[in-house]
Amino acid sequence: MEDTATSIAPDWHVAQWFNASSPLTLQVLRGKVVALHAFQMLCQGCVTSSIPQAQRIARSFDPSQLAVIGMHTVFEHHDVMTPQALAVFIREFHLTFPIGVDLPGTADPIPQTMAAYAMQGTPTLILIDRRGRMRKHAFGVEDDMRVAADIAFLLAERELSNDA
Amino acid sequence: MEDTATSIAPDWHVAQWFNASSPLTLQVLRGKVVALHAFQMLCQGCVTSSIPQAQRIARSFDPSQLAVIGMHTVFEHHDVMTPQALAVFIREFHLTFPIGVDLPGTADPIPQTMAAYAMQGTPTLILIDRRGRMRKHAFGVEDDMRVAADIAFLLAERELSNDA
Amino acid sequence: MEDTATSIAPDWHVAQWFNASSPLTLQVLRGKVVALHAFQMLCQGCVTSSIPQAQRIARSFDPSQLAVIGMHTVFEHHDVMTPQALAVFIREFHLTFPIGVDLPGTADPIPQTMAAYAMQGTPTLILIDRRGRMRKHAFGVEDDMRVAADIAFLLAERELSNDA
Amino acid sequence: MEDTATSIAPDWHVAQWFNASSPLTLQVLRGKVVALHAFQMLCQGCVTSSIPQAQRIARSFDPSQLAVIGMHTVFEHHDVMTPQALAVFIREFHLTFPIGVDLPGTADPIPQTMAAYAMQGTPTLILIDRRGRMRKHAFGVEDDMRVAADIAFLLAERELSNDA
Repeated sequence: MEDTATSIAPDWHVAQWFNASSPLTLQVLRGKVVALHAFQMLCQGCVTSSIPQAQRIARSFDPSQLAVIGMHTVFEHHDVMTPQALAVFIREFHLTFPIGVDLPGTADPIPQTMAAYAMQGTPTLILIDRRGRMRKHAFGVEDDMRVAADIAFLLAERELSNDA
Repeated sequence: MEDTATSIAPDWHVAQWFNASSPLTLQVLRGKVVALHAFQMLCQGCVTSSIPQAQRIARSFDPSQLAVIGMHTVFEHHDVMTPQALAVFIREFHLTFPIGVDLPGTADPIPQTMAAYAMQGTPTLILIDRRGRMRKHAFGVEDDMRVAADIAFLLAERELSNDA
Repeated sequence: MEDTATSIAPDWHVAQWFNASSPLTLQVLRGKVVALHAFQMLCQGCVTSSIPQAQRIARSFDPSQLAVIGMHTVFEHHDVMTPQALAVFIREFHLTFPIGVDLPGTADPIPQTMAAYAMQGTPTLILIDRRGRMRKHAFGVEDDMRVAADIAFLLAERELSNDA
Repeated sequence: MEDTATSIAPDWHVAQWFNASSPLTLQVLRGKVVALHAFQMLCQGCVTSSIPQAQRIARSFDPSQLAVIGMHTVFEHHDVMTPQALAVFIREFHLTFPIGVDLPGTADPIPQTMAAYAMQGTPTLILIDRRGRMRKHAFGVEDDMRVAADIAFLLAERELSNDA
């Protein structure tokens, strides 16, 4: 994993959730490793590469240890990438992990979670450790083995989550 | 290629064209082999497999001999797969071949070109020979070499196009 | 296809054939397009990419129009890439197209067919038209659609083969 | 990971090592997770899928925590898959992890490590935990994310390795 200074992951700002019975927060997920997958439904790299990867992550790791969370971070073409269109996309692509709709900015095309995390674009994958600290922040798509090895590193820190 | 009875390909019914300066008809294209690629922008198999294949066909074959034509055949979720959304999709996926919007059915969710060709769903690839006859009709995605070999078979019939 | 000056393809020099009941020559194949696929059994690019591509070519095109011919052009490590080892390789990889063993050079590690065609290494794909002229000479691996389009171009020249 | 009864991984029987300055044993590797990758150099599934996967594992995980070990388990065609041929294969495929040559059986085509582990064929991937217990035994090729998740599970057991 990149050797970056770690910082507490900021809260999410979500207008609406799909595949979740109640709003999900980092506080609720504390104790698990979180793979936050930011995408747009009409972003080619997302649709062909990173969303299938997020599905493989969700299918392969133990959900009691790792939470995969999608975030629809629309920063352009807001009029066609609506929550209604996203609902169809989620169904057609058989996505089963929780997906939040990033809250639109008030005076800015960049939505609020995307801004809080200083994402450069989509797709972006962020890994958050069991104590809520941001540990990986990758714009673009990396290969499965690389991503899984980074997740494995954080999963192996289990005991450290108790000493905070 | 499948040994099917051949028939004259029916006319298209198109509400609007993208990447074309004027409406395209089978009459206009007579003399070329036509690869008609029917898709929906939120169909997973289309987005991940058949649309990239259509791009490879358009890039690899001589456009004076082979015309690749996309057809957006929306038969469900009409409210989110609008021409406005398709325009964004075409730009984000860098599609450069001509794409028609299949004309909505009057009392039917199935659009008119899709109905005329009796397509089973999306993606569908149809090959039309130099004389306007339908020679291949495939629902789903086949591998590049198979599709290219079928195109090659029709391209090799050049001289026959003069004896009609 | 690359716009290269065309020349008559030189004869092959073959020590031994696999998957062929009698020796194959360009004269025997005259009238067909020939895809000559030069490889070494321990060349990584050959094993993972070009040999599977040669299998897809052989499976997809009409064998009465296109002949796929393998050529085992060993230019290094001759002691382990023997005909005996090649026989095992052909069986384990389920190769069914004819494969010749390029005749070793007399005072040179480069075998004779490889030298006659001035190949730079393996894999190399050479396309020869119906009249025996070399029309494509590619070192490395190209995508299926590109290769198939080049084959299609030569198949479409059918009528020209009679005017020599 | 499959829920199998675990057992102590048997010792290896190795005639010769490549990419290792001294013989490697499970005892030497105790404390690390071990990915034991059994292959034959002329096995198609090995060459096209499992060996590249082993390379990705070796490149992605921390070598102080995970050891990737190749094992050339020749059970047929012994005369052409010799250590001399394997040496060429290792060089041509740029393999850098340690690779042992499984010791031939005395009265049996099955080599001794392959027999001790009751492998069904090649490729086989075996995961051994930090305490030397066999935890995964998979014949064939699984996707990267699945394999990496299984490795991650064993890496996360770090603290347990001290309580034996």
